[in-house]
Amino acid sequence: MDAALLIEDVRLTPILIADPPLLNTQGVHQPYTPRLVVEVVTRGGVTGVGETYGDGTYLELAEPLARVLPGRPVSDVNGLFALAEEVCGAARGADERVDAGGLRGAQTADKLRLSVVSGFEVACLDALGKTLGLPVHALLGGKVRDRVEYSAYLFYRWAAHPAAGERDDWGAALDPAGVVAQARRFARDHGFTSFKLKGGVFPPDEEIAAVRALAEAFPGQPLRLDPNGAWSVETSLRVAEELKGVLEYLEDPASGTEAMARVSAGTDLPLATNMCVTTLAELPEAFARDAVQIVLSDHHYWGGLHRTRELAATCRAFGVGLSMHSNTHLGVSLAAMTHVAATVPDLGHACDSHYPWQTEDVLTTRHTFEDGHLTVSEAPGLGVELDRDRLAALHRRWLDDDGTLRSRDDAAAMRQADPGWVAPAVPRW
Amino acid sequence: MDAALLIEDVRLTPILIADPPLLNTQGVHQPYTPRLVVEVVTRGGVTGVGETYGDGTYLELAEPLARVLPGRPVSDVNGLFALAEEVCGAARGADERVDAGGLRGAQTADKLRLSVVSGFEVACLDALGKTLGLPVHALLGGKVRDRVEYSAYLFYRWAAHPAAGERDDWGAALDPAGVVAQARRFARDHGFTSFKLKGGVFPPDEEIAAVRALAEAFPGQPLRLDPNGAWSVETSLRVAEELKGVLEYLEDPASGTEAMARVSAGTDLPLATNMCVTTLAELPEAFARDAVQIVLSDHHYWGGLHRTRELAATCRAFGVGLSMHSNTHLGVSLAAMTHVAATVPDLGHACDSHYPWQTEDVLTTRHTFEDGHLTVSEAPGLGVELDRDRLAALHRRWLDDDGTLRSRDDAAAMRQADPGWVAPAVPRW
Repeated sequence: MDAALLIEDVRLTPILIADPPLLNTQGVHQPYTPRLVVEVVTRGGVTGVGETYGDGTYLELAEPLARVLPGRPVSDVNGLFALAEEVCGAARGADERVDAGGLRGAQTADKLRLSVVSGFEVACLDALGKTLGLPVHALLGGKVRDRVEYSAYLFYRWAAHPAAGERDDWGAALDPAGVVAQARRFARDHGFTSFKLKGGVFPPDEEIAAVRALAEAFPGQPLRLDPNGAWSVETSLRVAEELKGVLEYLEDPASGTEAMARVSAGTDLPLATNMCVTTLAELPEAFARDAVQIVLSDHHYWGGLHRTRELAATCRAFGVGLSMHSNTHLGVSLAAMTHVAATVPDLGHACDSHYPWQTEDVLTTRHTFEDGHLTVSEAPGLGVELDRDRLAALHRRWLDDDGTLRSRDDAAAMRQADPGWVAPAVPRW
Repeated sequence: MDAALLIEDVRLTPILIADPPLLNTQGVHQPYTPRLVVEVVTRGGVTGVGETYGDGTYLELAEPLARVLPGRPVSDVNGLFALAEEVCGAARGADERVDAGGLRGAQTADKLRLSVVSGFEVACLDALGKTLGLPVHALLGGKVRDRVEYSAYLFYRWAAHPAAGERDDWGAALDPAGVVAQARRFARDHGFTSFKLKGGVFPPDEEIAAVRALAEAFPGQPLRLDPNGAWSVETSLRVAEELKGVLEYLEDPASGTEAMARVSAGTDLPLATNMCVTTLAELPEAFARDAVQIVLSDHHYWGGLHRTRELAATCRAFGVGLSMHSNTHLGVSLAAMTHVAATVPDLGHACDSHYPWQTEDVLTTRHTFEDGHLTVSEAPGLGVELDRDRLAALHRRWLDDDGTLRSRDDAAAMRQADPGWVAPAVPRW
């Protein structure tokens, strides 16, 4: 092994990035959300970059992992899992319930660790690609498409955060007209032709009306609705009945495999999930019960890009569709998503991405959607460059925070507007 | 993309290699068996090598694929599948039954094509690794072990082929004493501590006696018996009952998922397969019915090393064990098997390999087992070098053959000794 490929140093930079007041069933996005930027520096002087969740629980695991990486080959990404288990896992059982953050599916130590590993894996692949002169997709066996399609991610939202925070020019979207206006702007600015509405915010009939308004505004274009498991089986079935032929798929109408299987049994509308299937352990039952027809992968949840490809293969074997979930993320993760998505043969739906909502990034050049697509980069590694001044400024914000924003808590943010708010139990409707 | 990585030329060299008179339920190995050596040459002047089945049906598909590869990046192995489908698939439906050779599981055009692609994928990875200075395992995300364990592959056999053919010094093995003597020589020469007996040759009680003799000679060491699906469910259950606590696992006692599921339901002895699960399409039913507890992967069947890793991941998700099947192969495929096996986290059993039976190879240096293990090569690519004189000589043999040996046919070989022989219908016992 060429010594230039050995890891010399690992840098972890927790940051806080601006996030608009987007509503979901648990509350509202905080004005700033934590992310962790992982940099892996090789002895050859090449720096690779990765990105993952930045909440305190993730940072806690990232630190010991960062300490043991120097001296290992940057190409050894398969070894990261056992290593992470060794250095981070001693204190907790794999299935032990931990608070890994809201609306992220299973909350186990094992999954938390995979989310942390994903940031390191991507950074290693970026460094490896830069060293070898190969794009990350080539390190995964090569792209099978030149562009990856993304969908517009529509949110009910306020015009401004109730307390401090950046204010953008989007205004509020709290009814069908607001949702359609948001969609039109997304279509105009980025060329998106698929639309996903984050639901679970208003009573189902209001959200059905919003979807119908979208269908009228964008006839024949793919539409999705995602209430994050907020509905009962009965409500889910009623919405499915009302929106069949209108929606491309319904995402996580109810919570958990049992409820999803019951919904699935009662409707022909395909069900997608990034909540009831977010770990390998959840696959067999969900597939056996036909609880979901489309798995929305997330390379953070599944432990990186190689594992995402493996998930895709498992879905293929079982005739389950695949697309991609997104949580608030920056351009590093969007590049990683695009590279891995480009290598998966059977990506049948436009991927989700919060990226257009993120006005701040750590890159020198933002990604640009054309006709709702990103072109797969042919530059070495991920094909992105860190803007160190931006990174330092966002890290400064993290340092300056008194701790209240260092872990994302949408219910706490909602209490700024509604002091009595607690995240609703499911099913909410 | 660096122009040095573009494919300049592809060379296909069908060869015939000596094979001893090893017995199985369909007949006996022919004196010579066909293999196909695939060489991919890059514009950078690097040559990568792969190996796959060499029967006429495979060669027919390899030729059009070889013609369209020049100009494509050698790193683009994911693209080989669609390309092969495009150039080879037009004439045949994916599920169309084709004669892909005996005892190789499902016989579909799709699977045949994957077996062909595997030889090209390995050649591409070898060329890519040599160009980049990285071992193939590093191109798959890196090894998680330094050595891969193999098992001794014991066969009932004759001392010599009935007609022409090389004669080795092993002598016959047609009873328990002969099998034990063979195992002792394997243990002495290669250090194997796991033993697999190819069964389905004699009535089950004789094979039970051979396994018992092995258990006495090698107390506590892992033993396996593989009758290639020759038994009825009832016979399988009787053998399982007699050999529980003696065998590590029973391999393909009965034919097909239905029969295997019924055997599995009636015994606690783990069942392994390289026959009822050899394609993605066969996985869901076999897993749902718990028909097998261990899948014996074969990178030829599954379409190469990346796909083998994906199979491993699917097995992991479903709690199914993984090990590796072997058909007659040379050192190129053994190197490929070792690289991919080194990257799979949960390889719970010693892999099979026919290699010790193959006295002829196309490499300048043969692989050497130590304590039953092969050390994972750190040299660029597969870490093997073609012996061009040997290759030319084995190709000459193929050219000189009148066609009778260019497709493997163990029943035809058996007819040299027993003119009335036809491959027995299953269940045979």
